[in-house]
Amino acid sequence: ARATLGFSCTKTFHNVLLAYLSLQIQFADQKQEFSKRPSKIGRRSLSRSISQSSTDSYSSAASYTDSSDDETSPRDKQQKNSKEIEIAEQEMPALMALRKRAQGEKPLAGAKVVGCTHITAQTAVLMETLSALGAQCRWAACNIYSTQNEVAAALAEGGFSVFAWKGESEDDFWWCIDRCVNVEGWQPNMILDDGGDLTHWIYKKYPNMFKKIKGIVEESVTGVHRLYQLSKAGKLCVPAMNVNDSVTKQKFDNLYCCRESILDGLKRTTDVMFGGKQVVVCGYGEVSRKGCCAALKAMGSIVYVTEIDPICALQACMDGFRLVKLNEVIRQVDIVITCTGNKNVVVRENLDRMKNGCIVCNMGHSNTEIDVASLRTPELTWERVRSQVDHVIWPDGKRIVLLAEGRLLNLSCSTVPTFVLSITATTQALALIELYNAPEGRYKQDVYLLPKKMDEYVASLHLPTFDAHLTELSDEQAKYLGLNKNGPFKPNYYR
Amino acid sequence: ARATLGFSCTKTFHNVLLAYLSLQIQFADQKQEFSKRPSKIGRRSLSRSISQSSTDSYSSAASYTDSSDDETSPRDKQQKNSKEIEIAEQEMPALMALRKRAQGEKPLAGAKVVGCTHITAQTAVLMETLSALGAQCRWAACNIYSTQNEVAAALAEGGFSVFAWKGESEDDFWWCIDRCVNVEGWQPNMILDDGGDLTHWIYKKYPNMFKKIKGIVEESVTGVHRLYQLSKAGKLCVPAMNVNDSVTKQKFDNLYCCRESILDGLKRTTDVMFGGKQVVVCGYGEVSRKGCCAALKAMGSIVYVTEIDPICALQACMDGFRLVKLNEVIRQVDIVITCTGNKNVVVRENLDRMKNGCIVCNMGHSNTEIDVASLRTPELTWERVRSQVDHVIWPDGKRIVLLAEGRLLNLSCSTVPTFVLSITATTQALALIELYNAPEGRYKQDVYLLPKKMDEYVASLHLPTFDAHLTELSDEQAKYLGLNKNGPFKPNYYR
Amino acid sequence: ARATLGFSCTKTFHNVLLAYLSLQIQFADQKQEFSKRPSKIGRRSLSRSISQSSTDSYSSAASYTDSSDDETSPRDKQQKNSKEIEIAEQEMPALMALRKRAQGEKPLAGAKVVGCTHITAQTAVLMETLSALGAQCRWAACNIYSTQNEVAAALAEGGFSVFAWKGESEDDFWWCIDRCVNVEGWQPNMILDDGGDLTHWIYKKYPNMFKKIKGIVEESVTGVHRLYQLSKAGKLCVPAMNVNDSVTKQKFDNLYCCRESILDGLKRTTDVMFGGKQVVVCGYGEVSRKGCCAALKAMGSIVYVTEIDPICALQACMDGFRLVKLNEVIRQVDIVITCTGNKNVVVRENLDRMKNGCIVCNMGHSNTEIDVASLRTPELTWERVRSQVDHVIWPDGKRIVLLAEGRLLNLSCSTVPTFVLSITATTQALALIELYNAPEGRYKQDVYLLPKKMDEYVASLHLPTFDAHLTELSDEQAKYLGLNKNGPFKPNYYR
Amino acid sequence: ARATLGFSCTKTFHNVLLAYLSLQIQFADQKQEFSKRPSKIGRRSLSRSISQSSTDSYSSAASYTDSSDDETSPRDKQQKNSKEIEIAEQEMPALMALRKRAQGEKPLAGAKVVGCTHITAQTAVLMETLSALGAQCRWAACNIYSTQNEVAAALAEGGFSVFAWKGESEDDFWWCIDRCVNVEGWQPNMILDDGGDLTHWIYKKYPNMFKKIKGIVEESVTGVHRLYQLSKAGKLCVPAMNVNDSVTKQKFDNLYCCRESILDGLKRTTDVMFGGKQVVVCGYGEVSRKGCCAALKAMGSIVYVTEIDPICALQACMDGFRLVKLNEVIRQVDIVITCTGNKNVVVRENLDRMKNGCIVCNMGHSNTEIDVASLRTPELTWERVRSQVDHVIWPDGKRIVLLAEGRLLNLSCSTVPTFVLSITATTQALALIELYNAPEGRYKQDVYLLPKKMDEYVASLHLPTFDAHLTELSDEQAKYLGLNKNGPFKPNYYR
Repeated sequence: ARATLGFSCTKTFHNVLLAYLSLQIQFADQKQEFSKRPSKIGRRSLSRSISQSSTDSYSSAASYTDSSDDETSPRDKQQKNSKEIEIAEQEMPALMALRKRAQGEKPLAGAKVVGCTHITAQTAVLMETLSALGAQCRWAACNIYSTQNEVAAALAEGGFSVFAWKGESEDDFWWCIDRCVNVEGWQPNMILDDGGDLTHWIYKKYPNMFKKIKGIVEESVTGVHRLYQLSKAGKLCVPAMNVNDSVTKQKFDNLYCCRESILDGLKRTTDVMFGGKQVVVCGYGEVSRKGCCAALKAMGSIVYVTEIDPICALQACMDGFRLVKLNEVIRQVDIVITCTGNKNVVVRENLDRMKNGCIVCNMGHSNTEIDVASLRTPELTWERVRSQVDHVIWPDGKRIVLLAEGRLLNLSCSTVPTFVLSITATTQALALIELYNAPEGRYKQDVYLLPKKMDEYVASLHLPTFDAHLTELSDEQAKYLGLNKNGPFKPNYYR
Repeated sequence: ARATLGFSCTKTFHNVLLAYLSLQIQFADQKQEFSKRPSKIGRRSLSRSISQSSTDSYSSAASYTDSSDDETSPRDKQQKNSKEIEIAEQEMPALMALRKRAQGEKPLAGAKVVGCTHITAQTAVLMETLSALGAQCRWAACNIYSTQNEVAAALAEGGFSVFAWKGESEDDFWWCIDRCVNVEGWQPNMILDDGGDLTHWIYKKYPNMFKKIKGIVEESVTGVHRLYQLSKAGKLCVPAMNVNDSVTKQKFDNLYCCRESILDGLKRTTDVMFGGKQVVVCGYGEVSRKGCCAALKAMGSIVYVTEIDPICALQACMDGFRLVKLNEVIRQVDIVITCTGNKNVVVRENLDRMKNGCIVCNMGHSNTEIDVASLRTPELTWERVRSQVDHVIWPDGKRIVLLAEGRLLNLSCSTVPTFVLSITATTQALALIELYNAPEGRYKQDVYLLPKKMDEYVASLHLPTFDAHLTELSDEQAKYLGLNKNGPFKPNYYR
Repeated sequence: ARATLGFSCTKTFHNVLLAYLSLQIQFADQKQEFSKRPSKIGRRSLSRSISQSSTDSYSSAASYTDSSDDETSPRDKQQKNSKEIEIAEQEMPALMALRKRAQGEKPLAGAKVVGCTHITAQTAVLMETLSALGAQCRWAACNIYSTQNEVAAALAEGGFSVFAWKGESEDDFWWCIDRCVNVEGWQPNMILDDGGDLTHWIYKKYPNMFKKIKGIVEESVTGVHRLYQLSKAGKLCVPAMNVNDSVTKQKFDNLYCCRESILDGLKRTTDVMFGGKQVVVCGYGEVSRKGCCAALKAMGSIVYVTEIDPICALQACMDGFRLVKLNEVIRQVDIVITCTGNKNVVVRENLDRMKNGCIVCNMGHSNTEIDVASLRTPELTWERVRSQVDHVIWPDGKRIVLLAEGRLLNLSCSTVPTFVLSITATTQALALIELYNAPEGRYKQDVYLLPKKMDEYVASLHLPTFDAHLTELSDEQAKYLGLNKNGPFKPNYYR
Repeated sequence: ARATLGFSCTKTFHNVLLAYLSLQIQFADQKQEFSKRPSKIGRRSLSRSISQSSTDSYSSAASYTDSSDDETSPRDKQQKNSKEIEIAEQEMPALMALRKRAQGEKPLAGAKVVGCTHITAQTAVLMETLSALGAQCRWAACNIYSTQNEVAAALAEGGFSVFAWKGESEDDFWWCIDRCVNVEGWQPNMILDDGGDLTHWIYKKYPNMFKKIKGIVEESVTGVHRLYQLSKAGKLCVPAMNVNDSVTKQKFDNLYCCRESILDGLKRTTDVMFGGKQVVVCGYGEVSRKGCCAALKAMGSIVYVTEIDPICALQACMDGFRLVKLNEVIRQVDIVITCTGNKNVVVRENLDRMKNGCIVCNMGHSNTEIDVASLRTPELTWERVRSQVDHVIWPDGKRIVLLAEGRLLNLSCSTVPTFVLSITATTQALALIELYNAPEGRYKQDVYLLPKKMDEYVASLHLPTFDAHLTELSDEQAKYLGLNKNGPFKPNYYR
């Protein structure tokens, strides 16, 4: 039976089976038609055929839970699941606050939200919040690996239509998305997407659905890029909200998160000691400067920076980093980190000159910063030494340590704190509310940034976590500054 | 004779007298007509009647030179003057680079620049550079106190028409400006202003001059504000370049400078030990966050922050500062610093509650952040204990230590490194070149920001100082990023 | 068959079996006599009955290797093992340098070293080095959990007599130690101990052996404490070298290691975001001040400190931390960390007042800093949520997150970088050489610290890793300072 | 009259004259006999003939007050004087606390203290405290430049016998000391010395006085060194307390003070911008590591370190500084700082290779770290550009900027916060009390460190300044740790 369902056989399977029942039943029959296709597809081919976006965002933080699954009974498991969600709730105060405010009004009453995001405890808190605000939800995973099965099961048990499991095949992936939108007697009127695959599928298969859809909320770089392309081509047929570029998300993802995840990602994969290590960081944008460079400096690393833009370069200088060309230091550094958004920043020639044991990784938005393809040549030997860690070995025995095959280190090798995801989830919820309730004409068929005031609202909902007390403008001060006392306090272009 | 020249009598007078001769002779006759007005006006009245802008920018860094003046002969003095300029040249590499490039071409040939800025060694380097680029210059001081007399003398000796001395009266001030522009047989075609007083004078007295003027370059917040008001009112009759808001200037002034000057200003005035001190910083913008807060934290102070904007507030939290309302900590803090841009941020009620010995100062753009006026009441005693330092004493003996009477601490109580002024001066020179050479129609009667590419050029001219090596984009990378290999690398709105 | 060998049944067993053969054969027969005792002893009872020292030092860093064991054949496995050792060699430059220098001389020729330490790749590098220096080695594990089976196998295959496996029972533990020392025709003349159990066993069972033993080298706090007690009681019958208190080890363990491991340990167990978190650190000694407090401050946490010693307290103040009593902040903090060396620093009353979700952990030398026993009461529910992470739940639903049951966080929940272990291992090797070669009478029956000069030698052997270039004293300078040009540079009491 | 009194003529003279009257009268007659000696001795010769100790400690922080003297009437001046003392009292909470406790008991009743220290507002607070504790005091200055005349006047007016003025000649210096001790009908029984000159004078001139003297309290490095030499030679005839090496003084002077004064000293003398500057720091001891290096790193400088001791070198590496030999970086650095305690660390060869504009200064304990003498050659030109700042100019025009002629930067070019002096002064007071009240036999004719418990008491007296709350040991904890609940908490060798 397992085989016919297309599950790859994992050792945790029997544990989650019972808890899965309610979920399984929902799609067991339709799934039949898919059972003829090969259920095992190697990872390599997958990552080529699936749109890039499916891996272009946060990976699941939950890998650790798998390892301790074995001796728990399914019953305990399920209790544990709801507990994971419960724990997440504690770190997502803003969503809980929204729920409370929703007791009187239901700003999403009548909303039918179809979503495609990572299925994690944090997403579960979001979905339950949307539900509390009045919405109906159907959900698929935006990534074939990131689903927390236990969370999916718990959601299913709670009555949500969730189509996702960890380790989907590519066909599974699209099947799940299709199941989300293609259902008798229910038509979505809002889209919440992460990567653009769901939006893409509807465009391709059910373009008529857009007649009833009030808007799209998109979180990822890739998805937003796709939307702007659609808009540019005049093909965007509903308003879309670019959540990715909201200030709070940007600051948290690029700076506060990276500051911690660069250390975490390197430690978990290599156990390297930071003190005294020589590190070169390529690029000096937000991710780099306060994220990577400041954190490594604080841990006692000696950090060099490369830049192409003289303004950023001057900032690197003033912040106390030597600005070099990569080749000036490549022979001596212990760690190479890219965060440029550019491609081929570290190429084979650089890799050839690195010293034995040099660690190479990418914190940038693109997987092409390190020319990993150039390492796939016969004279080099690859050795997988841990999950996400490869040794690439030169004929003379020199090894470089390549992390996550050049993909984003923080997403591949560290976890994202719930508190950060709370910022994103709250922004998504508010974007849905805004688009759903906006009067006719406020939003056209274009891509919008969240109004600054909502950004500020998201931020204010997270202040109580820090026991932080905001000061209020007096009438006189507001007048002096030419501001409304309740904001927005910054111009819309503020970043 | 001194009186007829309108000099206030200072002890350094006789020293600079001889060196001044070339300057004096230039304007001695015209000056006669002004000699009937009262030559001594108290400081208080001055600061009210002179436009605010005249003190709204960097004060002279040269106070130290005065104290050692006494035993030097005028001849030595003058040699020393040119030396001060020479020293400044070493720290202004970009202007020197411009001069070198000017050997072939003279981009300012034919330009007649009338300027009104602080008269310091750094300005001298700028003027000599403009001259090397082909321009003729006439100059007045934008501030009655900031002129370095020796520099003025050296410039005069070098053939520049400079009208300024330290300690001008208000009438002196306007007389000097008038002398700059109102001269037979010479009409300016470019304005370089700092504060807007020169521009204002021409508008008021010689509006016809604008027919020949190609543009205005303005550096200060106040001056820029005035220009935008003119533009809004449709009264701006030439293009103007807003140098104040160029990226490099902003970053240096707001962040890298304040990081050092908050410590320097507090130390020079109060000799306070930072370690363990409790400090509240009002506002968490650029000046505050990386300037004041980060520097004080690094020195071992415990820093609290107040904010009105939830986005900035959240950043303060994530950066490790407790976000409070002022009154929560006012009784316990040792130092209060305002950097909000707002008014009445610290009011009498707060001041009443501060503890004995509390230091109060302002790093913000406006002098009204601390309600100093509220301290001018009979029951409080003021004691001037050092230059720029007042003790305000409550009836019960409690003293608070008020710095610079609430004016900008970094400008009043610390010096601005030449390297920072180099950034501004280079930007001014480039703005003059751009406006002077721009083809008809490129700039209309509006206020412009320096094109990003010029900003980047200014930055690149300063990199060699740090022995910094910029990386160049490959053709392939430039194409991938959709950028020109030579920049601009950032969108124009980048800050 | 497995049962008779006393192995607890683990899933990795069959994989390591073949590779183990050479090891098994060595002790299979003697082992028979032990086979009657119960082979499964619960962890709790074990940790009570085994001397504390067996867990009082670094745990294995190799937990990650276990998870990927399953699909590797034993043959591959063994190749991988030697690779782990090879990788470790790269990070232990000083031992490799010692080996090189040993090519001419064999300072340990004739030495018969019996050792009892963690059996890890790093220990393997040490053993191979001792062997290269001329010594014969027999080894047991000092901890029942920390053995890397693959390393043990590789060592056995390489001809070393190693008696250890991961997951020993208590009886196994002592059996292994006994096998090390009790062998026909071979009598140890040097002891290398970590925790004192081996020394204790010889004292108890084979006191006559000490006649031939030239000295003991001891690494752990506990072991050193035992030695001083023996010495005080006049029962120490050979010289002993206290490696634990050598400067380099202390600085690395207490400061440079903790600075990184506090972050790593908290992240791996809880994924907590550090930015903005309120943390109270109990105690402000070396571990705390530059280790925990500085690292957390750099990551944006707000840190409070408690202290009993006014001198340390004053340092905390000057370093920018508010000094409080625990109860002043216990309700508001997100994380509580103990590093005092004291007991009952956090007691039930404190735990009762913590807020929901508060994380509690110990970085101090003693497991009794947090009164964990007080949480083992019927009204509180314990939930193991991950390895090393327990939720303790109050009747009202409040949870606190207890890490490593109050044991040392850095040893339980993070890994120790090889580079740090290299310092310790090199010190051990030098201590062995010193004791083995010391002329009669240099060392008496007492506990010694490593001569400062050797400490300095250990340090100097690690400098090339950082491409660090030491300056040499001129003859004149050495004379001025009253120092030998080659050191020692510090008095022996320098720490 | 002035000439006969041996005053060098300064412009502040007439201002202080009247206020001085009470002081003058005390010694006017005796002074006659000295009036025949030359009253003007150049500085150079002075610093050779006076014992080095007289400049080997904190210079006066009061230089700023001089410059504003001119327009104040003597009457105002004197009121201002007591105010300076009053201000100092606020920052010396521990002395004030001692005074309060002295209301009941007079631990120094009967003590006749002869002192020789800097005469500053802080010393005045100490003297008034000693007086409140029951002592009689007679005082001279330990440095010919550091006396704050106004403070001396205020003390004299308050009835203290003070013999000191700013700008003493060498003969004045010894005359003042002699006047202190050589007085009819009063014989000192305690010595408080800073530099050892007073002690030396008594040894030389009035050795019999030691019969009544109960002890010496010495603060400076030099003075302590002299005492140890006396002790070694068996010539120390009373107990002496080494205050210089007390923990609190060391930590504050070496670390917390230098952290701030390196920045302050560089800024006040050169206005240099720290951001992006390349700095080499010679030596990595306490002063260097957390003082200079950490502070400069925090301000955005790139810091290199040189060391001779591999242990300190390894610490520099781990703290994130590249360890180099001086010559590797000497061509590229902007600032060179010595803090080694060694001599000839920077020699002419290094100075020859520095780049134009390089700043050179010394933070170490010895004036010989920079070989300044090697710069006094004919081909180099010296130019004094500001107080404490010389340009040394090479024949090719290259200038290096030498600060304080290689003397200690922090003492020469920055001020010492009162709070730091409070630590020292309190320690001195306690040392006096201890020696004066110690039972016969507790102290022999040797040099002692302050008992750790008193160190801790000094620290605890300063905690209220930070609103810091110490935790108390429970009886159970004290027993567990083997400590007395009230301390001492650290062994006596703790530093």
